[in-house]
Order: sequence, then structure tokens, then C-alpha cells
Amino acid sequence: MRKHTIDTISDRRRQRLEQVLRRRQPNLTIVVENVWDPHNVSAILRSADAVGLQRVHLLYTIEKAPNLRRFGKQSSASAKKWLEFTFHDNTEKCFDGLREDGYSIYASHLSREAVSLHEIDFTKKTAIVLGNETRGVSDEACERADGIYLIPMMGMVESLNVSVAAAVSLYEALRQRKEAGFYDTPQLGEDAFRDKLTHWATL
Amino acid sequence: MRKHTIDTISDRRRQRLEQVLRRRQPNLTIVVENVWDPHNVSAILRSADAVGLQRVHLLYTIEKAPNLRRFGKQSSASAKKWLEFTFHDNTEKCFDGLREDGYSIYASHLSREAVSLHEIDFTKKTAIVLGNETRGVSDEACERADGIYLIPMMGMVESLNVSVAAAVSLYEALRQRKEAGFYDTPQLGEDAFRDKLTHWATL
Repeated sequence: MRKHTIDTISDRRRQRLEQVLRRRQPNLTIVVENVWDPHNVSAILRSADAVGLQRVHLLYTIEKAPNLRRFGKQSSASAKKWLEFTFHDNTEKCFDGLREDGYSIYASHLSREAVSLHEIDFTKKTAIVLGNETRGVSDEACERADGIYLIPMMGMVESLNVSVAAAVSLYEALRQRKEAGFYDTPQLGEDAFRDKLTHWATL
Repeated sequence: MRKHTIDTISDRRRQRLEQVLRRRQPNLTIVVENVWDPHNVSAILRSADAVGLQRVHLLYTIEKAPNLRRFGKQSSASAKKWLEFTFHDNTEKCFDGLREDGYSIYASHLSREAVSLHEIDFTKKTAIVLGNETRGVSDEACERADGIYLIPMMGMVESLNVSVAAAVSLYEALRQRKEAGFYDTPQLGEDAFRDKLTHWATL
């Protein structure tokens, strides 16, 4: 199959790619910490794409860093194809890098100091940390985060699956950003927009 | 093991059960239509309990109605233990019954007539319809619903897993209801509250 370029894709395809790039949110990201189940990571990536994330941080300090090939098929319907990834094996360096880039870091964790998800201002440049299936976000990541939030749980069950927690958190960010008009004007700079469009055309 | 009753449970247990019952939302429910994967149903029930639902409607018109024993363990951590179920095999009868009880019925479906999730007023008495993994909500259920909503999708991927869609929808309902104070005053009537407390003590 001949590979497409920006000059050979159909108008309809180009419009679709441009539409999605206009809605990308380069100032919202997630840090996936030691999540080992490929189904969970795939589901998280799907929600990340749906909410318009462009980059996902994969922080593996205990579990072995996963091979991206395990996360869903290489079809155009697969979320990972449209996302960029940064791998980390050190929490301090990961968070320092994010802070240098201007992100506030919020970890999803059940704890006394946590505020409710709905109190977080997701219109700021934000990185959301989601933790391992059993252990949750690590103590180190919680301590190094700028804040800890919890997803309100009104029932008898005391935890949510990590992919559900990711979706609920990301969709609260989407709700706030939609209200603030973040999906109506491109958030990517002109150069980044053009570079990504050129690259996406080949995918 | 001796079975506990309301007179033999610990004060701490009783307080926990009462806390959860005070937050139950008898005027919010979901209709799970032909969802066949037990993992998906389990995840939906977990979110339902977490948001404070008391009853779940299982509508199976094509897929065989599932055996509840398949939906998660019979441990106290399992959501299904704290929920009540109504089985249906006829969409019209199911929806007529809900309407007689005063529910407005909203189906989660990608379609031109759909409004955004965030435009729905979930402080009203609402039943949310979630459809089969592949086919989505059926045409019949969409036609018979009072409205159709969609979960905004800003990326390249064009659908969410049904358990993710359920969680995102239910948590939007929680957000609105929390803001409106629905979790601060008991929504269950006194008799229902006492009956359920007596029953839950034995679980």
C-alpha cells in the first residue's frame, strides 16, 4: 500500500485531521504510574485521545515499562497512534520536568488531604497522576505532587478501576475546558499544528 | 458463621451503612441494554454504587439475560450486593414502567439529534440507557427515549467502552446532584431507609 502524505490525502481526511488537531490540549496531560494491565492502559489512552490530550507520560518505577505494542491494535481506530509518549523511570525527574514545562501536578488518591475532583481547576496547565491497579498512586508521587484529589464515592464500594478513574477525571477536565472555550480555538501553536498535520497524514 | 442482624452489627458498621443509605439516589437509575460482557456489567455496577444508585434495570431483548452470579464476587466489596435489580425483556414495557414512576429516559448514543451530556439536567428523576458493546443503544430504545445525549469526543477515536461511558455519565449526574445538595439530605423515605438498613445489616 502506498503511504499517504499531506499532499495525497483526501480533503475529507484532511478536514478530519485538522478538526482533531484544533481540539488538541497540549496543556493537559496524564502520568500513568506503574499501571501494568494492557487493557487498562488501552482504555486510559482511549479516554486521553477522546478528551484531546496530545502527550501521555508513562512512569514505571516498579513494574517493568510496557511495550507500546501491547496497548491496542495498530489500526487507525487505536488511540495510541494519535498520542505521543514520554517514558520515565524516576518520579522526581518526571515531575521536575513537568514543572519546568509549567504543569501543576495532581494525583488521584484517596487520602485525608485530598480535595474533591470537582474543586480542581483543570483550565490551568495540569498533569493528572493515575496509579497502579492495586497500590494506587505511590507515596512518593503523592508527596511530590502539587495536590491530591479524590473522586467522590457515595456507595459501599471503596475504589474504582483505574481506567474508570482516568475517564471520570479527564472528562471533568473536558467539561471545564469546554465551558471555557478551549476546544473552540486551537491550543497548539501554528508550527506544531502544521508538523503534526504533516505527520498524521502519513499514519 | 452466625448471620448478623440490625441488633448485632457493630456501631461502626451501622454508621457506615446509614451513611451510604443517606446518600442513595432512588430517583436516578440506569437501564443496561444487552451488554453481554460480565466485566463491563461489573464495572457499570461499581460506578452505579459509587454514584449512589439503588436500583439497576437490566434490559435484555437480544442477548440472553445474564445470571447475576457472573457479575463479580459475592464479597461485601462487590457492588451488586448493595444494588437492586429489575430484569426486562421488552423495551416498551420497561420504559412505560419507568415513565409511570416519573423517570425521564435519556439514551447515550452518537446521533445527530443528540445533545451533549453536559446539557442534561440530572437533578430531575432520570433513567440513563446504556447499550450493547458493539451496536450501542438499539434504534427502538433511542426512539422510545425522551432524549438522546452524546459524550463529547474530541479525538480520533470515535467510541468509548460502555463501562467508561457509564462512569462518565453517572459522574456527571453525581456532580450536578452534589452541587444541588442531593447527598446531604436522605433521598430515601423513612420506611425504605429503615427496611434497607435492616436488610443490609444481614449482608
